[in-house]
Amino acid sequence: MALLADPEAHATLMKRAGVDLELVAIGVSDSAKTRSQAPWFPSHLLTTDLAGIVARDDVDLVVEVLGGLEPAGSLIGDALTSGKAVVSANKALLAARGRELELIAASKGVDLAYEAAVAGAIPVIRTLRESLAGESISRVMGIVNGTTNFILSKMISEGLAYEQVLSEAQRLGYAERDPSADVEGFDAAAKAAILAGLAFDTTVDLETVHCEGITKLRSIDLAYAAKMGYCVKLLAIAERVNAGVSVRVHPAMVPMEHPLASVDGAMNAVFIEGSAAGPIMLYGQGAGGMPTASAVLGDLIDVARNLVAGTFREPPRRHASLAVTATSDLISEFYLSIDVKDEPGVLAKVADVFGSHGVSIRSMEQAGLGDEARLVFVTHIALERAVAATIDDLQRLREVDAIGGIIRVIGHDEGDH
Amino acid sequence: MALLADPEAHATLMKRAGVDLELVAIGVSDSAKTRSQAPWFPSHLLTTDLAGIVARDDVDLVVEVLGGLEPAGSLIGDALTSGKAVVSANKALLAARGRELELIAASKGVDLAYEAAVAGAIPVIRTLRESLAGESISRVMGIVNGTTNFILSKMISEGLAYEQVLSEAQRLGYAERDPSADVEGFDAAAKAAILAGLAFDTTVDLETVHCEGITKLRSIDLAYAAKMGYCVKLLAIAERVNAGVSVRVHPAMVPMEHPLASVDGAMNAVFIEGSAAGPIMLYGQGAGGMPTASAVLGDLIDVARNLVAGTFREPPRRHASLAVTATSDLISEFYLSIDVKDEPGVLAKVADVFGSHGVSIRSMEQAGLGDEARLVFVTHIALERAVAATIDDLQRLREVDAIGGIIRVIGHDEGDH
Repeated sequence: MALLADPEAHATLMKRAGVDLELVAIGVSDSAKTRSQAPWFPSHLLTTDLAGIVARDDVDLVVEVLGGLEPAGSLIGDALTSGKAVVSANKALLAARGRELELIAASKGVDLAYEAAVAGAIPVIRTLRESLAGESISRVMGIVNGTTNFILSKMISEGLAYEQVLSEAQRLGYAERDPSADVEGFDAAAKAAILAGLAFDTTVDLETVHCEGITKLRSIDLAYAAKMGYCVKLLAIAERVNAGVSVRVHPAMVPMEHPLASVDGAMNAVFIEGSAAGPIMLYGQGAGGMPTASAVLGDLIDVARNLVAGTFREPPRRHASLAVTATSDLISEFYLSIDVKDEPGVLAKVADVFGSHGVSIRSMEQAGLGDEARLVFVTHIALERAVAATIDDLQRLREVDAIGGIIRVIGHDEGDH
Repeated sequence: MALLADPEAHATLMKRAGVDLELVAIGVSDSAKTRSQAPWFPSHLLTTDLAGIVARDDVDLVVEVLGGLEPAGSLIGDALTSGKAVVSANKALLAARGRELELIAASKGVDLAYEAAVAGAIPVIRTLRESLAGESISRVMGIVNGTTNFILSKMISEGLAYEQVLSEAQRLGYAERDPSADVEGFDAAAKAAILAGLAFDTTVDLETVHCEGITKLRSIDLAYAAKMGYCVKLLAIAERVNAGVSVRVHPAMVPMEHPLASVDGAMNAVFIEGSAAGPIMLYGQGAGGMPTASAVLGDLIDVARNLVAGTFREPPRRHASLAVTATSDLISEFYLSIDVKDEPGVLAKVADVFGSHGVSIRSMEQAGLGDEARLVFVTHIALERAVAATIDDLQRLREVDAIGGIIRVIGHDEGDH
């Protein structure tokens, strides 16, 4: 936001926004750190007194890009309570306390805008809140974590193991030294909760988001999937199911011809299925300083215009209190890779277990592995609970050495049961 | 909009919008025509007196989905002049008279919203106006006409001739009996003018949009392009070039790995290149009653909220008066297919013509055709004027029988000279 101090950028922005913005303070954790060398950089505005900024009477609008629950949560709460508009890029905070903060904003008649919190500069929040305000949305599926998409793309294109690609991603700065927030799906889960709330006029408790990461994916399963015409992606999914909603993060096999399948590397995309609008996909850079800054600036201009007009955007109504459907009640096709002893009659025994749980097999391929054989199944649409029971029983068979990959298949007729 | 009379849909919408909307009239050209059989359909609100609707004191907001310049233009002008907000889906009118209507809206302090005018339910207008308000955009490229994208996709996938696919498209209702607005690129040109104006804060005169359609494309050239790793698309392009802007519609070879290349059939997509946001692509159904209705409803709710709040969205500033750069001053790579006599020394003569105009050849393939040979060239980045002069000279060579396809190549380092 220091950009607002650059005379040229400031002039362009003000022309476009039709309002004048004055930068009065830049809160930082360490004011001694070396920053921009630009002649216009307003070093005199730096301060470590964050609470002081929020308490100032001459501040109308606060931009929060700290991240994390605290002190960001208290600062935003205080800013809103004292009638200041807030622009935030903080997905963790908004997933955890978004509703509470929205209610404070509404009670004070000020804006709380957070386009940058999900998928960087991709305008998904504004699209759900405004463009699709008249739409009945059935499902939102997103590739909303660039790190895991980078890792999966590399595993697929180069046939490398997860650990190997993770190391490279860490070396390139695409993955953190502790990568768990990304690879375990926690980052995507926070975004899924935010998207689900906006798509379905409800409030989703982050604790209820079912979350599976990519750490157990084997490149051999990604290769089998590719051979069958699928690309494996880590998806954040928010879906209407009967009277409820399912919000979850897990790897999924996406048909190659689906628009999400060609979203490669660190790119993000959100695929929205609406009853009138049809499918809409929004694609772009989901992270990084510049895309985040772009989304923050868009919000900043919007909120500033509202301040000047003396109005604000009513927060989402959240009038639908939707129950969260357990993942075990969902249906989908499943990919299963099973290592078995290479003996006569094994396939019949395995197939019998599937049948006993009412899980119907759509296709099977067998590959020899010396003394073992690998059976690769894709099921028809099946209840997740039935597939779990099938797996339990399979693991008890003497002939089964290991259950390898288990991946849900997305893009056909999956949904609720 | 008759949907507003459906009690259930009305209740949902009102909850979401936080405002109440009362439908007071439905203007039609023929009130006797049979319409919805729904019990709630408000037949008593039908009227052919369009000017009467616009003149009514109890109307705050007018939705225009007539299309065409008149009477839509007069009606919208009158509505805005009398202080009514307007939601329109009329690309032709907005491309021709958008600026004039925006100024009336601004002078009266009311909204003129038109998300549905470009690419159906794809939220491209709102993204350019709001999400990217802080962004410096360098280029917008769109597949914004579903009919031509359907025809090109079919020509490529089935190797059929243009005329054959056009007939099929007409039979399926994808193309009009008089298809010229689509296939000559006029529809895309109107959308390009609207997008360019929003992306670059300027006003683009529709007359200055360079427009080439798809009627001269041969499936053999599409096949050569595919072999070289390109997909041919009709693109609407709005681009900053030096101090000016280039706004144009023409077929282009897009590298297969570019996100626009996989936009198939009647789907639309708009690819936006910003300096901070990076590339953003918005994808979806660009036409049809339902997607258009969805976009209109989104605008309707937005505008209604503003009415209740007593505010309106300032129209785009258009403070940059950018000159339109002539297409001949642009640079790009070019695909050229040239039928020549199958004689010794022909390639040297042809290559000499390229060289004499400073057009450098990146690749060449030769295919025998009996007494003839076909030379397929892709040039390096070249000035469009130089390529035109090359073609003129080639046509004068005795050895050249015909210049077949000439297609610009997009997605590398093209831009201005």
